[in-house]
Amino acid sequence: MRGALLVALTLAVAPSTSGPRYGTDGQLVRPDDYREWIFLSSGLGMTYGAVDKAGPPRFDNVFVTPAAYRNFLQTGSWPDGTMFALEVRAATSQGSINRGGHYQAGVQALEIHVKDRARFAKGWAFFAFDRTDQQLARPFPPTSRCQECHAGHGAVDETFVQFYPTLIPVARARGTFKGEN
Amino acid sequence: MRGALLVALTLAVAPSTSGPRYGTDGQLVRPDDYREWIFLSSGLGMTYGAVDKAGPPRFDNVFVTPAAYRNFLQTGSWPDGTMFALEVRAATSQGSINRGGHYQAGVQALEIHVKDRARFAKGWAFFAFDRTDQQLARPFPPTSRCQECHAGHGAVDETFVQFYPTLIPVARARGTFKGEN
Repeated sequence: MRGALLVALTLAVAPSTSGPRYGTDGQLVRPDDYREWIFLSSGLGMTYGAVDKAGPPRFDNVFVTPAAYRNFLQTGSWPDGTMFALEVRAATSQGSINRGGHYQAGVQALEIHVKDRARFAKGWAFFAFDRTDQQLARPFPPTSRCQECHAGHGAVDETFVQFYPTLIPVARARGTFKGEN
Repeated sequence: MRGALLVALTLAVAPSTSGPRYGTDGQLVRPDDYREWIFLSSGLGMTYGAVDKAGPPRFDNVFVTPAAYRNFLQTGSWPDGTMFALEVRAATSQGSINRGGHYQAGVQALEIHVKDRARFAKGWAFFAFDRTDQQLARPFPPTSRCQECHAGHGAVDETFVQFYPTLIPVARARGTFKGEN
C-alpha cells in the first residue's frame, strides 16, 4: 500500500510543468512537455495586423500549464507561475484521404508567456524559442509589441481569453472578464 | 505528511479519464473531461469526401486519454481502454482584435472512439454525443462508414495517426506506422 501511495505521489508531482524554470541570467528553460499541458484553442491564419494573403496560413495552438488551468477554473484568474505556450505549425491540405481544408504539419515557432510578479516589472514576460534545439531564451523587453498588445487587449489579465471558448464562461462567472476590445 | 500523500493520491487518480465507463445496455457514459486529455491536433474544414464549398468550414480538435498517450509513447500502440475525442467547433473570423483567418467558437458535435477488444467485435467502436446534455450513447454499428474508413485507412491500428504530427515519429520508431493510404 505504501508503494502504491508513492507511485501515486510520483505521478502527481512528476511533470516539470508546474511552473517556469530559469537558467543563468534569468533565461527561461524551454518547457519540453508543453504538448502535455491543457489545450485551450487553435486558430488558422489569425492576424492582428493587415491580412497577408500572399503567405500560406499557419495554425497556432495554445496550451496552459495544468496547475494554472485548475486555478483559473476556481478563480477566473492566473496565479504566479502560469505559463502559456503558443505553438505555430505549418498547414497542409493534401495527404492520405483528406480532400479539402487544412491540417497541421511541422512546428515553425514556439513562444512562451509567463506570469511571475516577483521577477518581471509588468508581471508577465514573453520568450521565443526560434530553433527547435534552443534550450534557453531571454525575455522580450517590456515595451515589446506582444507585451503592449496583450496588456491593452487581453480579456483577462494580459491573456486573450476572448479566443479560448472554454474559458470565457468561467471568466464571466468569476467576474474577471474585461470584455473584448 | 499523511495528509499530503492523500492529497497527491487524490490528484493522481481523480480524473475519470483513465478509460471508458458504460451505463445500461452497454451505452458509453459521456466523458465530460475530455478537454483535459492530451491534445493531438486540429484541422479546419477537413473532408474525406467531396469538398463542400457551400458551408462554412469547421474546426475539429482531437484528444486522447492520458494513460493511452503514455502507453503509445512507449510502444507505438493503443491499449484497451484508449479513448479518442473528436470535438467539432464552429469557426469565426471577426472578433476582438483579430483581422483575418479563423478561430474557434461553440461546440457542434462530439464523437468518441473507444478500443475495448473484450466488448467490441472489431476491437473499436464509435459513439456520437449529438446534444451537449446527452449523457449516454450507443455504439455505431460495426459496418458504419466511420468504422470502415478507420479500419481501411488508419496509419496505426484503426487511428489516423497520419494527421497527428507529434505521434508520427513515435509510430515510425516503434515500427507500428502502416503508411498513409
